[in-house]
Amino acid sequence: MAILDYPDAVKNLVAELKRLPSVGPRSAERIAIWLLQSKKANPIALAGALSHAAADVVLCDVCGFFATQDGCPCCLALGREEDILCVVEQPTDVLPIERSGAFRGRYHCLGGKLSPLDHVTPSDLRIAGLLTRARPGMEVILALGCDVEGDATAHYLAEELRDKGCKITRIAQGLPAGGGLEHADELTLLRAMQGRRNISME
Amino acid sequence: MAILDYPDAVKNLVAELKRLPSVGPRSAERIAIWLLQSKKANPIALAGALSHAAADVVLCDVCGFFATQDGCPCCLALGREEDILCVVEQPTDVLPIERSGAFRGRYHCLGGKLSPLDHVTPSDLRIAGLLTRARPGMEVILALGCDVEGDATAHYLAEELRDKGCKITRIAQGLPAGGGLEHADELTLLRAMQGRRNISME
Repeated sequence: MAILDYPDAVKNLVAELKRLPSVGPRSAERIAIWLLQSKKANPIALAGALSHAAADVVLCDVCGFFATQDGCPCCLALGREEDILCVVEQPTDVLPIERSGAFRGRYHCLGGKLSPLDHVTPSDLRIAGLLTRARPGMEVILALGCDVEGDATAHYLAEELRDKGCKITRIAQGLPAGGGLEHADELTLLRAMQGRRNISME
Repeated sequence: MAILDYPDAVKNLVAELKRLPSVGPRSAERIAIWLLQSKKANPIALAGALSHAAADVVLCDVCGFFATQDGCPCCLALGREEDILCVVEQPTDVLPIERSGAFRGRYHCLGGKLSPLDHVTPSDLRIAGLLTRARPGMEVILALGCDVEGDATAHYLAEELRDKGCKITRIAQGLPAGGGLEHADELTLLRAMQGRRNISME
């Protein structure tokens, strides 16, 4: 006797959900049942949002941010400082920096970071476009993560940008806001010490 | 100067993903960017699976399992024992029991468990249908979770089913397979002791 199984439509939905990052087999089943059973769920709205985004949204050829047929909000934004460029890994890194209020120049999204283990090489990132955008006298801020891949990517970019006549900087590493010393690991403390700044009121 | 923001299509997709269970704001952004950027992603296939499942799949009026226009695989299955009914919380609980090979009767999916804190009352569960299906001489196995809500639901159902002439059982609680005593909490050990069985070879 064959054991029971889900209808194909359910199996197919679970299979597609399971492909999403950080969604495992059990999460996929739980999400699928919620989508099909909960009064709060709206699978049609999610399907519409997916189709709409897939049809309308492309990554900007210039900066790698999310663009539509109306153009790239990042490249079209008015009143930005044109002589300062902030390099981030992902388009999703742009909004947190915007919200911080600390930067009003242009952005460049690499689309990832160098990671030999994940087969991400320089040709997989938006580096050629960055070299085209870098002009003499410009400041290029490398706002990459502080992990091994972020460090490697920063060093690689600094090397590639060396002859462009840019000022190349990297965002500071140190204690996170609200974090006491007792929660910081040794490497964070080392970087925080190395990056100490003068606050004497002269 | 207005700060940058995502195109509406991206914001809408993130908003819909954020509504899924166990997907927080950061996960929703990470999933959205993966869907729009990764070569492995196929948002159109996911949208299709959602639309297809939403259009084709309903919950069976009788047993609460996933049914389609072809009927309910759970109710239509041939060769099942008709005098034994297994009550589970969710349709997703059916397949694990099937795979265990320990049960070949019929199923009844409640669609949840009693939980006053989450505003789940008896009228929210498929209990009236269960009372209709329960016949004298039948065994009703309560295969509910071992948490507070599962216990409360089991007691409520046992009370409701009392006059139906059924044998009412509940699946055993005890040590999980592969789990040593050193990993078991006190309540699990208490239940395992209370549920001890005779293995003397007489």
